[in-house]
Amino acid sequence: MIIDAHGHVTAPDKLYVYKSGLISHRGAHGRGSAGATDEDVKRALNEPVFGGSSHLAQLKEVGTDMQLVSPRPYQMMHSEQPKLVNWFMEETNNIIAKQTKLYPNVFRGVCGLPQSPGVSPQNCLAELERCVKQLGFVGCLINPDPGEAGGIATPGLGDRYWYPLYEKLVELDVPGHVHSAGCRSDRLPYSLHFINEESIGVLSLLNSNVFKDFPTLKILVSHGGGAIPYHWARFEASSLRQPGATRFSERMRNIWYDTVIYSSDSLALLIKTVGADRCLFGTERPGVGTVKDPRTGKWLDETRYLIEAFDWLSDAEKKMIFEDNAKKLFKLDTAAPAAA
Amino acid sequence: MIIDAHGHVTAPDKLYVYKSGLISHRGAHGRGSAGATDEDVKRALNEPVFGGSSHLAQLKEVGTDMQLVSPRPYQMMHSEQPKLVNWFMEETNNIIAKQTKLYPNVFRGVCGLPQSPGVSPQNCLAELERCVKQLGFVGCLINPDPGEAGGIATPGLGDRYWYPLYEKLVELDVPGHVHSAGCRSDRLPYSLHFINEESIGVLSLLNSNVFKDFPTLKILVSHGGGAIPYHWARFEASSLRQPGATRFSERMRNIWYDTVIYSSDSLALLIKTVGADRCLFGTERPGVGTVKDPRTGKWLDETRYLIEAFDWLSDAEKKMIFEDNAKKLFKLDTAAPAAA
Amino acid sequence: MIIDAHGHVTAPDKLYVYKSGLISHRGAHGRGSAGATDEDVKRALNEPVFGGSSHLAQLKEVGTDMQLVSPRPYQMMHSEQPKLVNWFMEETNNIIAKQTKLYPNVFRGVCGLPQSPGVSPQNCLAELERCVKQLGFVGCLINPDPGEAGGIATPGLGDRYWYPLYEKLVELDVPGHVHSAGCRSDRLPYSLHFINEESIGVLSLLNSNVFKDFPTLKILVSHGGGAIPYHWARFEASSLRQPGATRFSERMRNIWYDTVIYSSDSLALLIKTVGADRCLFGTERPGVGTVKDPRTGKWLDETRYLIEAFDWLSDAEKKMIFEDNAKKLFKLDTAAPAAA
Amino acid sequence: MIIDAHGHVTAPDKLYVYKSGLISHRGAHGRGSAGATDEDVKRALNEPVFGGSSHLAQLKEVGTDMQLVSPRPYQMMHSEQPKLVNWFMEETNNIIAKQTKLYPNVFRGVCGLPQSPGVSPQNCLAELERCVKQLGFVGCLINPDPGEAGGIATPGLGDRYWYPLYEKLVELDVPGHVHSAGCRSDRLPYSLHFINEESIGVLSLLNSNVFKDFPTLKILVSHGGGAIPYHWARFEASSLRQPGATRFSERMRNIWYDTVIYSSDSLALLIKTVGADRCLFGTERPGVGTVKDPRTGKWLDETRYLIEAFDWLSDAEKKMIFEDNAKKLFKLDTAAPAAA
Amino acid sequence: MIIDAHGHVTAPDKLYVYKSGLISHRGAHGRGSAGATDEDVKRALNEPVFGGSSHLAQLKEVGTDMQLVSPRPYQMMHSEQPKLVNWFMEETNNIIAKQTKLYPNVFRGVCGLPQSPGVSPQNCLAELERCVKQLGFVGCLINPDPGEAGGIATPGLGDRYWYPLYEKLVELDVPGHVHSAGCRSDRLPYSLHFINEESIGVLSLLNSNVFKDFPTLKILVSHGGGAIPYHWARFEASSLRQPGATRFSERMRNIWYDTVIYSSDSLALLIKTVGADRCLFGTERPGVGTVKDPRTGKWLDETRYLIEAFDWLSDAEKKMIFEDNAKKLFKLDTAAPAAA
Amino acid sequence: MIIDAHGHVTAPDKLYVYKSGLISHRGAHGRGSAGATDEDVKRALNEPVFGGSSHLAQLKEVGTDMQLVSPRPYQMMHSEQPKLVNWFMEETNNIIAKQTKLYPNVFRGVCGLPQSPGVSPQNCLAELERCVKQLGFVGCLINPDPGEAGGIATPGLGDRYWYPLYEKLVELDVPGHVHSAGCRSDRLPYSLHFINEESIGVLSLLNSNVFKDFPTLKILVSHGGGAIPYHWARFEASSLRQPGATRFSERMRNIWYDTVIYSSDSLALLIKTVGADRCLFGTERPGVGTVKDPRTGKWLDETRYLIEAFDWLSDAEKKMIFEDNAKKLFKLDTAAPAAA
Repeated sequence: MIIDAHGHVTAPDKLYVYKSGLISHRGAHGRGSAGATDEDVKRALNEPVFGGSSHLAQLKEVGTDMQLVSPRPYQMMHSEQPKLVNWFMEETNNIIAKQTKLYPNVFRGVCGLPQSPGVSPQNCLAELERCVKQLGFVGCLINPDPGEAGGIATPGLGDRYWYPLYEKLVELDVPGHVHSAGCRSDRLPYSLHFINEESIGVLSLLNSNVFKDFPTLKILVSHGGGAIPYHWARFEASSLRQPGATRFSERMRNIWYDTVIYSSDSLALLIKTVGADRCLFGTERPGVGTVKDPRTGKWLDETRYLIEAFDWLSDAEKKMIFEDNAKKLFKLDTAAPAAA
Repeated sequence: MIIDAHGHVTAPDKLYVYKSGLISHRGAHGRGSAGATDEDVKRALNEPVFGGSSHLAQLKEVGTDMQLVSPRPYQMMHSEQPKLVNWFMEETNNIIAKQTKLYPNVFRGVCGLPQSPGVSPQNCLAELERCVKQLGFVGCLINPDPGEAGGIATPGLGDRYWYPLYEKLVELDVPGHVHSAGCRSDRLPYSLHFINEESIGVLSLLNSNVFKDFPTLKILVSHGGGAIPYHWARFEASSLRQPGATRFSERMRNIWYDTVIYSSDSLALLIKTVGADRCLFGTERPGVGTVKDPRTGKWLDETRYLIEAFDWLSDAEKKMIFEDNAKKLFKLDTAAPAAA
Repeated sequence: MIIDAHGHVTAPDKLYVYKSGLISHRGAHGRGSAGATDEDVKRALNEPVFGGSSHLAQLKEVGTDMQLVSPRPYQMMHSEQPKLVNWFMEETNNIIAKQTKLYPNVFRGVCGLPQSPGVSPQNCLAELERCVKQLGFVGCLINPDPGEAGGIATPGLGDRYWYPLYEKLVELDVPGHVHSAGCRSDRLPYSLHFINEESIGVLSLLNSNVFKDFPTLKILVSHGGGAIPYHWARFEASSLRQPGATRFSERMRNIWYDTVIYSSDSLALLIKTVGADRCLFGTERPGVGTVKDPRTGKWLDETRYLIEAFDWLSDAEKKMIFEDNAKKLFKLDTAAPAAA
Repeated sequence: MIIDAHGHVTAPDKLYVYKSGLISHRGAHGRGSAGATDEDVKRALNEPVFGGSSHLAQLKEVGTDMQLVSPRPYQMMHSEQPKLVNWFMEETNNIIAKQTKLYPNVFRGVCGLPQSPGVSPQNCLAELERCVKQLGFVGCLINPDPGEAGGIATPGLGDRYWYPLYEKLVELDVPGHVHSAGCRSDRLPYSLHFINEESIGVLSLLNSNVFKDFPTLKILVSHGGGAIPYHWARFEASSLRQPGATRFSERMRNIWYDTVIYSSDSLALLIKTVGADRCLFGTERPGVGTVKDPRTGKWLDETRYLIEAFDWLSDAEKKMIFEDNAKKLFKLDTAAPAAA
Repeated sequence: MIIDAHGHVTAPDKLYVYKSGLISHRGAHGRGSAGATDEDVKRALNEPVFGGSSHLAQLKEVGTDMQLVSPRPYQMMHSEQPKLVNWFMEETNNIIAKQTKLYPNVFRGVCGLPQSPGVSPQNCLAELERCVKQLGFVGCLINPDPGEAGGIATPGLGDRYWYPLYEKLVELDVPGHVHSAGCRSDRLPYSLHFINEESIGVLSLLNSNVFKDFPTLKILVSHGGGAIPYHWARFEASSLRQPGATRFSERMRNIWYDTVIYSSDSLALLIKTVGADRCLFGTERPGVGTVKDPRTGKWLDETRYLIEAFDWLSDAEKKMIFEDNAKKLFKLDTAAPAAA
Repeated sequence: MIIDAHGHVTAPDKLYVYKSGLISHRGAHGRGSAGATDEDVKRALNEPVFGGSSHLAQLKEVGTDMQLVSPRPYQMMHSEQPKLVNWFMEETNNIIAKQTKLYPNVFRGVCGLPQSPGVSPQNCLAELERCVKQLGFVGCLINPDPGEAGGIATPGLGDRYWYPLYEKLVELDVPGHVHSAGCRSDRLPYSLHFINEESIGVLSLLNSNVFKDFPTLKILVSHGGGAIPYHWARFEASSLRQPGATRFSERMRNIWYDTVIYSSDSLALLIKTVGADRCLFGTERPGVGTVKDPRTGKWLDETRYLIEAFDWLSDAEKKMIFEDNAKKLFKLDTAAPAAA
């Protein structure tokens, strides 16, 4: 079974028309609703997207059996006015919930949180609980920079600022998936901001007391852990200087990594560095990698085949990556839910 | 003939999906395009909107023969990053151009400008020229507060800051339609910000040298001139104190006013105060007034009938308001264009 | 009997010399005092002002029997340092108290509050109590924008921020008179800022829970309610869209309006729109309207005669406007106080 | 003959009523005028002030023959909006001009400049020329901190920022009198801000190239040179460390100092430190020192007698301080002007 | 016996290498340590410095028997990140502690506090207690402007903001030595900022209730009290205007002054103005005054001889200045500590 | 021959004492000098550092024949006041120049530039020319974020902002070595800021016109190119979407990469991804990696042996990495200079 732990919602246009309205009327029209029907949701998943076939077809094409879908991060607009963020996150999560209900064999939901820079994540707990308890979501995104590189800095993920969220995650026994969102800086696109923020997030977490204080906290980091698996030895050096400290490379095994990287050598580096038992298969498909390489005629995000081709991985290890780790981390019941 | 001088585009969803993308990727995906086809544009005009029938049907229902359409002001996002504003304004104007081409008997275009707070309106002249010369637009919106009440103040319309725009309007012989856009303040909704900004705009213009310096400049003010026709005598008092100054009430006749007001007494006040020869019929239909009053069973924006019912207006005066003034101000050729 | 509900103090020069000192030494000279004697106060009221006769004479000329006097709003300098504002407000209120004591048949006091942007109105309650309980004031001004358009925004009048003040007003059973003060923006003069802020204040109040939470709260809005009676139908439209909501036009009757407008048609619009039972006669005389129109030879603020000329108003309704509403709202004992 | 080189205008109340209006209407009432007549000016100089007799009488009481009068510094409000500063400085200078015309044997004018923080002193040259060439002023005040300790820093007096002003002073051959004005900081009163700013000004000037670049520039520093004559050796130490540098104590003789200090020992220190040929008698009377010491029964600002009592000063040196230095520095023609 | 109450540490280079690292890695290398050994500390005190002989030799050369040493103020960097300030202050105090332990006959410690602008001095109490109770320090520096003229203002020393510190000083019965530190402004060097801040500090303290609220609080002001002993009569004038107020000159005797002034006349002024019983001998040697005057061949900071030469001071008064006042204020046990 | 292209100066303590002084007196002591003698410089290079032997010994231990030394980046303090930055950069470069002169067989200099956020790099050209033409440096560091994550953003390396520097580099025919410096953010240490800024720099450069406009510009990126060689395929995807665009992976070969990575797998990934002909051996030794791994008993920065152990690299390729590429890029004359 192939589980793609990192996918983003292909939502009906209505969601973005709704968003466009929100940031224009700024609440003057009231909360309103995207008004997306089941039909809208189905159509969105069955129309061609990202230069390829439909979202559902794209999953089938590469044999993905189940995908965890979360909001499109770059659309989350966490640095906007909190009231608007709240409404938009709820609508987005509602659409994801509809998808998981309409396609119970295919999708599981990972919700977005109404994070706001300068506001305690305490404000996210209600929506997190609603999604997990009422809508059956199996995890949530954590944006380490809700200020979107726009002036208001948020403490690193190792800071006690985040503890209310970690407490709730532990209580609900669902993982947090670290994934930054928009980027207001002119110096870099959001896509690289993802990578940089993941590096910051991983370093901050691993150099903190978070996993001492929350031994059962489950954290998954996107895009192969940012730059850390490539530069880990740089931070190993620092840890070796601290008497009595655990090696950085050992601490790295406190978290999980998804495989959203589109080249074979880099995938190999990731898996060898953190261990197959810490990797979850992920593609973001359809997404940034959904483009065909004219040289090979293949989609960049067909990374399943790259991993399957690794002869230095045992079948058991591959199964971990493709299936077991995700099931364990997200406590997935891959049998379609009866009713929910 | 009934000409509605103040209408806003009913655009395909794709325009707002495009906008939502722009403010999320902030240019990282490139300029791109809303990708709205003629079919999309037609569909948008023929689907039910604003709780009533379609845009085109709504015009017919009240007998509007021609409507001047401009961007939905609250969506213009002038306080966003200039590059994004530019792209979005172009796309919006392009869709309006499509509408005027597809329905040459019904629509004429009034373009939006890529205004930015703190930036000289010099930056708008290229788009204004493109719209007027290449796309056949008959005027433009002027947002007196491109900062959208968000911290960066823009000089009043009487300030020399605006002269590059006035020079171009005079050169092209098209009017500027004063209409503010979004409002970032929590203290008031954009809809009231419109009114307040129109009051500021009118006062600033009339207490300046603009009409001495540009005797042929044509300015139309939205929503019955903000609060000015209600409070004009307050400013008359000031003018009477200045030796040799023209009375404020006389200066008020340097500009035009549209009738986007939804109550009979207020419409009467406007017309009596500024003169029928200074009023242009306008409804914003479909728009804020497109709601049925359960007491009367009528749409609030069916204001045509309110004006027609004024027995103190001659037929000639009514024709001025409904037709002649608009034709003169916008130099409308109401015969459908042959090819453009 | 003619009661002018909206007049401002004609203070001795010493008050403004005092103010000029305060904002220069910024407290280094201590609190000090304007040092205005009864004689100073009398002289100020009996010297020619505003291009006409004296304040007292001007009242007589138009037959005003009683006037409610408050601080000159544009002088209140609420955006200055709180300590200085406090001292200046006290001095101003003290001079008003002297006037009401010296001319008990003519004046009643409406106090200014030491409002400061960013500071809870809690800080105003002591001065309000002092004025009402010790000095016999019958109401207070409320400046909805103590930041004076200068950068620090204050929540709308519908916000809970204002509740401490509303509670005290209800407890003391005196009305708050909404009237903004100075304006630091270069885009508009304070005189138009008054109008815009009144519009914002009315809309914020009427779209809030204030009158549900304080059913006995009494609010009077200056200058005929800003732009709202001219544009009410625009907001009616919004209210009609909200299922179960009270119409905006009905909510408008939760507040009172003064008639400080200087043209007949606008006065008529106001009275017809909100009802004679919601209007209080007011002139600001001597003030902005104290200028003679060379065409008519009349002062603009002789609006008494405009209202008296309305043949569509009954005598009882006129009496409401000129007398009864003010007496009721401010609980005026128009017999001169024995001792106070 | 006793010349008091440092006195401030005792202006009619109308000037401060005018100022109070300016900062309240912020230009909305137009420039207007203080409207002070010759009678007003005379009355102001002949009414009791500062707890003593009238300004003119106070001069006579201590035998002052001539006084150089400038604006009251703490009232100059340089950190206000430039347009308002301009108007107020002109009005203040006009009143001083009236005084010098009405009392040509007693007063000479030292004008205030319309300085603004963040604006080049270039903007002051027109008013300086007007005062010197048209109104017969003999010098000007220089406020080294027009930002009034309120956030906008102004370069030190040794910076090229000030060169346009120095060029004009040299061209007109009049001295600049260093005297700071208001102080917006809560940490210190304006009166101590004077002292601190004078210290900063002297140090900045003397450690710069100003007197190399403008060898004929004439600078008088208020209040005995701030703290510098008390702490000069601290700065001498630094100068001794710089190879080839002129000693600080020698550079100190590039400027002049007034004797506005109210204790005998301090006056002695000043004169001994900088030399009698560098001191100009000054009192600010009536001003801060116009208070009687109950122990001695004398006014603190009767400092003439303190200096006269110095037996270590020759008569010629005393004459320098009381008369000659002022005549030379300000090129005073102490015969009353014929017509001016 | 000659006690120099105002000296600053001559620290090993390692302290400043440590500091340079701190502000560069900003904590990333951890707290670390300057790592200065006893040998380093000794060497620093025995190497030539400030253009003369060694610190210890310089003391001997002028016969100083004991010196109170505190951190070099301009190096204290209070406006840096609090964590870094804390570490650096601790290291600096530790080095001073080493000096006092190594040279128990010569040095006593006055500690620096980890002050931060915008942070209550409550944060300094732990380090103050550590220094006094564990390390035997006899007092502390108080920087009245931890913001270092860099934008964040700190309330004046008379403000209740400082009360937690005053309470602790009273409890520990040690004096606070007012001495500002760095200066980020381009308008003045830190050396003059010292003087200005001392003036502000003295005025704020003496015009407050501090000595009423803390009658046993002991405050020593650096550099002869800033400008106050030169300008005291200016503030005496204000006090004479306040009915019932204690004269400013009497209040001046609530605090102590050190004699860090390098000219005879100024020293005389200080001692005569505040009284010999309020003066503590101080030199800052080696420091700003450690430079030889080529004219006299003497170091500027050999001020001992200037004071000894005052024939108007009795021997008892000189002993007060050189020895008794310091012993009393700092409770000095000038016998070398047995073990500490 | 082994050339280490990335080393940082081991400077005498005096340099950091000098720096500590600069940021404390902020120029008040004048420019001064670190005053480091040849002896100081030699001693610094021959004393144990970073927990190992001396700098020179550490090079020998791993057989490094020549090292390019530049300033310690985290010490460069580019976000400080420009005057101070300038002085410190000059002193640092002077010390490097001394090293290269004293050890002409071992060191070549790469200078630091006095960059300042918000200031055009035009300000760096004089120092760059001085270093290259007068002192024989072979390249310079380029800090892509002179604001040090402290609030002032600098345009990406692809922006025209940098063109003056690129022009000069081309003119002098020396490479720029991209390496960020300090980091004021609390969210990440400077060491990770290096990595993130390198990623931003590479992406900005490769997605710009820089190499079209400057085909001979030579850019070396530190630390294996940040995260880019690990995540290149993510950006390849974007390039494949742009019609006619060169593949990102091809553009990657416009720049050079050093091998400052401390793990074998990551080194392999780098070399395989960008090509051996684009890699320059570098270690930063002594530096972050100079720590012994207790498991292996080896220093982390003995990476020479990791590369030598790659059996998939030919000897010629290894020689490129260790020697040829550096010689070519920096035009190294590895024979010791005769005199320079």
